[in-house]
Amino acid sequence: MLNIGLLGCGRIGQVHARSIGQIDGARVSAVADAFAEPAQMLADKTGAQALSAEDLIGSADVDAVVIGTPTDTHYDLIHKAANAGKAIFCEKPVDMSANRIRDCIKVVEATGVPFMTAFNRRFDPSFANIQSRIANGEIGNVEIVTILSRDPSPPPISYIESSGGLFRDMMIHDLDMARFLLGEEPISVYAVGSSLVDPEIGKAGDVDTAAVTLTTASGKICQISNSRRASYGYDQRIEVHGEKGMLRAENMLENAVEIATPAGFQKSPARHFFLERYESAYRAEMGHFVDAVSRASSPSPGIVDGLRAQELADAADTSLKQGSVVKLA
Amino acid sequence: MLNIGLLGCGRIGQVHARSIGQIDGARVSAVADAFAEPAQMLADKTGAQALSAEDLIGSADVDAVVIGTPTDTHYDLIHKAANAGKAIFCEKPVDMSANRIRDCIKVVEATGVPFMTAFNRRFDPSFANIQSRIANGEIGNVEIVTILSRDPSPPPISYIESSGGLFRDMMIHDLDMARFLLGEEPISVYAVGSSLVDPEIGKAGDVDTAAVTLTTASGKICQISNSRRASYGYDQRIEVHGEKGMLRAENMLENAVEIATPAGFQKSPARHFFLERYESAYRAEMGHFVDAVSRASSPSPGIVDGLRAQELADAADTSLKQGSVVKLA
Amino acid sequence: MLNIGLLGCGRIGQVHARSIGQIDGARVSAVADAFAEPAQMLADKTGAQALSAEDLIGSADVDAVVIGTPTDTHYDLIHKAANAGKAIFCEKPVDMSANRIRDCIKVVEATGVPFMTAFNRRFDPSFANIQSRIANGEIGNVEIVTILSRDPSPPPISYIESSGGLFRDMMIHDLDMARFLLGEEPISVYAVGSSLVDPEIGKAGDVDTAAVTLTTASGKICQISNSRRASYGYDQRIEVHGEKGMLRAENMLENAVEIATPAGFQKSPARHFFLERYESAYRAEMGHFVDAVSRASSPSPGIVDGLRAQELADAADTSLKQGSVVKLA
Amino acid sequence: MLNIGLLGCGRIGQVHARSIGQIDGARVSAVADAFAEPAQMLADKTGAQALSAEDLIGSADVDAVVIGTPTDTHYDLIHKAANAGKAIFCEKPVDMSANRIRDCIKVVEATGVPFMTAFNRRFDPSFANIQSRIANGEIGNVEIVTILSRDPSPPPISYIESSGGLFRDMMIHDLDMARFLLGEEPISVYAVGSSLVDPEIGKAGDVDTAAVTLTTASGKICQISNSRRASYGYDQRIEVHGEKGMLRAENMLENAVEIATPAGFQKSPARHFFLERYESAYRAEMGHFVDAVSRASSPSPGIVDGLRAQELADAADTSLKQGSVVKLA
Repeated sequence: MLNIGLLGCGRIGQVHARSIGQIDGARVSAVADAFAEPAQMLADKTGAQALSAEDLIGSADVDAVVIGTPTDTHYDLIHKAANAGKAIFCEKPVDMSANRIRDCIKVVEATGVPFMTAFNRRFDPSFANIQSRIANGEIGNVEIVTILSRDPSPPPISYIESSGGLFRDMMIHDLDMARFLLGEEPISVYAVGSSLVDPEIGKAGDVDTAAVTLTTASGKICQISNSRRASYGYDQRIEVHGEKGMLRAENMLENAVEIATPAGFQKSPARHFFLERYESAYRAEMGHFVDAVSRASSPSPGIVDGLRAQELADAADTSLKQGSVVKLA
Repeated sequence: MLNIGLLGCGRIGQVHARSIGQIDGARVSAVADAFAEPAQMLADKTGAQALSAEDLIGSADVDAVVIGTPTDTHYDLIHKAANAGKAIFCEKPVDMSANRIRDCIKVVEATGVPFMTAFNRRFDPSFANIQSRIANGEIGNVEIVTILSRDPSPPPISYIESSGGLFRDMMIHDLDMARFLLGEEPISVYAVGSSLVDPEIGKAGDVDTAAVTLTTASGKICQISNSRRASYGYDQRIEVHGEKGMLRAENMLENAVEIATPAGFQKSPARHFFLERYESAYRAEMGHFVDAVSRASSPSPGIVDGLRAQELADAADTSLKQGSVVKLA
Repeated sequence: MLNIGLLGCGRIGQVHARSIGQIDGARVSAVADAFAEPAQMLADKTGAQALSAEDLIGSADVDAVVIGTPTDTHYDLIHKAANAGKAIFCEKPVDMSANRIRDCIKVVEATGVPFMTAFNRRFDPSFANIQSRIANGEIGNVEIVTILSRDPSPPPISYIESSGGLFRDMMIHDLDMARFLLGEEPISVYAVGSSLVDPEIGKAGDVDTAAVTLTTASGKICQISNSRRASYGYDQRIEVHGEKGMLRAENMLENAVEIATPAGFQKSPARHFFLERYESAYRAEMGHFVDAVSRASSPSPGIVDGLRAQELADAADTSLKQGSVVKLA
Repeated sequence: MLNIGLLGCGRIGQVHARSIGQIDGARVSAVADAFAEPAQMLADKTGAQALSAEDLIGSADVDAVVIGTPTDTHYDLIHKAANAGKAIFCEKPVDMSANRIRDCIKVVEATGVPFMTAFNRRFDPSFANIQSRIANGEIGNVEIVTILSRDPSPPPISYIESSGGLFRDMMIHDLDMARFLLGEEPISVYAVGSSLVDPEIGKAGDVDTAAVTLTTASGKICQISNSRRASYGYDQRIEVHGEKGMLRAENMLENAVEIATPAGFQKSPARHFFLERYESAYRAEMGHFVDAVSRASSPSPGIVDGLRAQELADAADTSLKQGSVVKLA
């Protein structure tokens, strides 16, 4: 039985608690939050102890920690947990600064604790299926990856202002997905973007509509586009074109009903809410973490994957600001 | 070059003229119609001679006739054309009376002329593909055939009154399709029906909504349903369930566009007009006829297929009127 | 908080326990099973007491019982639970005998306890959506209901022998769905069937491939077909054709991936396992029961729905054996 | 009746002859080809005169010319036909050199003859439907256009060598489509490309896999990707994301059949052959030309559209070679 301590009892912490509840061989043994109430509520629900973050990390009853606190606290918690020898599951981004992530890598490597960066989309049943079929050679060499990713509606301007910008806040998932599917590191990044959804987003110095082109050393190409709005739900599609064929994943709709009328054949909108859209991905990523830690193998994606995605987001941001291509080492 | 004489220059005659125009190795050499104008128009367009029916059948410039005249004239024209040694392509139904079709079979068999009953749907690229894949064993033994067939809107009551009723006028296509796909003759027929679309159809003694169940000696089952209305276009679907899998054909839509809005994902309606829906089927059936006659082989479906479908329609009509199952020899 | 006692801790009992665990306002307070081990395991997992069935029904800590024991025990448990004033959630079929169900109706009506028959498919998000859109008038009057239902593979012969036959064991779900969607009682039933999947099923006196036609007083038609095999997964589709349009629900596939190769565009198979296919339906039906009991309203479907479906299954069985149409009062 | 003279009787000339044969109000009155045989064959089939190009352009029996000869002859024929006052339908590209197209624009404008550049894809029923729905405001302002375009297999190296390169030979269609759908001129072009399909293409100085990003002054973004191979047919998809929704067109498949087996649900491959894929587009573009000329209105796309697409292809080629973004005036 793996005893897990939850650092952060907000929305994402609760998601992870539910996932752990469905996994044999793991339980929530302790919870911590800056606020007493959510911590106590989650403790009641799961039968865990509500502790301070420090006590949780120090507890003998905790084998692994799930870090779901605000991003600026990750750095400190990672250092403490690693030094306490706990396995670490950390929400993305590991940190807003690539340099600080490099620091975290040092402590993780020095202590040798298992570390997983929570790029949950890699565990979506469809996206994971695509990656494993690429690995099985079903479409031969990958040539073109196309990622279309659109949120139902933009977050509040206050969120935008502290988000690090679209590339670090939203496209980072797609940049990680690109690496996951290309199987090769990008060597060039070109980004374009504009604020078409809400001029306030532009005034806040960010974009709400953007596209990135990545290339790899062997000549593979990846095109990503993002929008902060999609009237028809949470639009999340990927497609991989290879020498022998093509793999793609369509959106997940609200239900499987189609109505036929004089206007045509209409299916339901795409699921709107990310927690619902990625429900099985959240469950599967935690299952992978528990399994890897229990078998003393390394969970994946690891902390270096967290760094690489951040570097790509930084490069995209630079490309947009400079209006030119950014070459990566 | 196969010289074809068109008997009947109405809508269906014009369809066949266009098909012949696209087939290498055939041409329209003569046309005939009870009315002078449509005959002359078609003659001008195709470069054919406008003749009387009798002269056309007697013409040395005519190798084969296409009978597209009113149903009650088929019997006489089939006899004349067969006795003149012409290959015959005849619109369905061959005749409203099964006994009169049996008479036609006699003359066709006695003279040995090639004869094709124009069940065009057998030549629809999708339906033909299904049948050939069944024949190739792709789904093993056929177990359940499901046919859904709905017209966009009912014909005028005047047409209904002289149509022979839904089973002989509309479902006859599906009954032929059932035989085509079952690969075995039905031994029982059970029909239900009602007039839900237009009470005037009920007053005219017919139904506009109907369903039939067929069984075969080996235990295969076929369910057919018909409606004289479908708000979303001409609904024509078939599905065959077998021991190893299932084959089905979806509707043909007006175009391949999908719009996504807050209401969902909407494709275009199904094609409404039967001539457009079955355009390639009309072309392919005429191609098959020309090919078979040119190679001196027997076209299919033949005249016996015309009889069998009529017998099934008769049985369905009897079943509905009696409210009980009709057993076939 | 609604305290629920589980009678039966087998596969279906465990499903209901998981559902209850995800519902606010309900908990499993007691469990009972003829065997000690499964009862204790479920007690440990949920924090409930393991009791005898009698003690559970008599417990003051139990507000409602979930009956998931073998069918032949339902009668007795329903009587005891009703007399103890407990709300009852009962797996289908209520009983194999319509007369015994009528007895159960008497005790349920006499005691006034809430009673729900667990026709879980009514709570499938797609099927429920179709029914509610019919009720909203989106397709006008219902004209033709088509239900296609196929299991991935047949159960063992030993199960077949005690199953009551395909109509009572398998098609009963579709017969209930027909009533749910037609919104009107069937007045005639015609069934055909054969044993195409496994001759042993035929030797056991049952069929594995069957089709039923239902009609209602107003002329609505329903066609159902069943097979005990489907190579491509658990095939569960319904379609409702109405005066203004058509509503249909497609299968739920394993994932949303499509691969394109020279052979074409291939999606994943349909989900195979009924517990996975209907996972959300199980959750929703329990949610409805808890909600209805908590608000002192009547859950639906009720015990009379359990009787009606059984009567239709009996009629279908009679029709098949007699080879003729069965009229219902 | 519009009398049309065909310049060039090769494959594309024959396509246009068939289209004209299906259009009321037009006929092929004369044909010309550098080789006598194809000219005579087409003359026999259509009843047209076989003439020299000069005589055809000078013929009083010719109202309009269709230029389907090799690209390097367009310049001269356009000049002669314009000076002879003939309406002109010209295959793409108008010329390989943007400067020479500018010369052609001068003569076309000076003589005032109607001129249509044959970007046939604008007339595909699905793509045309998308453009008209954008124009109708169905998705509000256009934000992101995504174009995926892949040939079934690469042309011979000899063709590649004289093709002008992928951007001018293949992507030019997509660049025109981008202009058609964006409704606004691109102001920046960034291209990447590699030779993944066949190293010989790389040795010939071309790429076989490429992607382009376009931006417009108002901030709209277009992403295009091309491959010279697609194992599953001729892959031609477009998608337009707007403020109120999304419009997309899926591939046209060989037929509407789906087979379900243990491997999943498989539809047919996409149509492979461009003449079959765009059959209705070819018919519709000629219909538009005949209609515009007959009504003395300007056909569209015109010669300036031919220039703009060429300029974008030139810019993409420059961007690829320079490895940087190209700004357009």
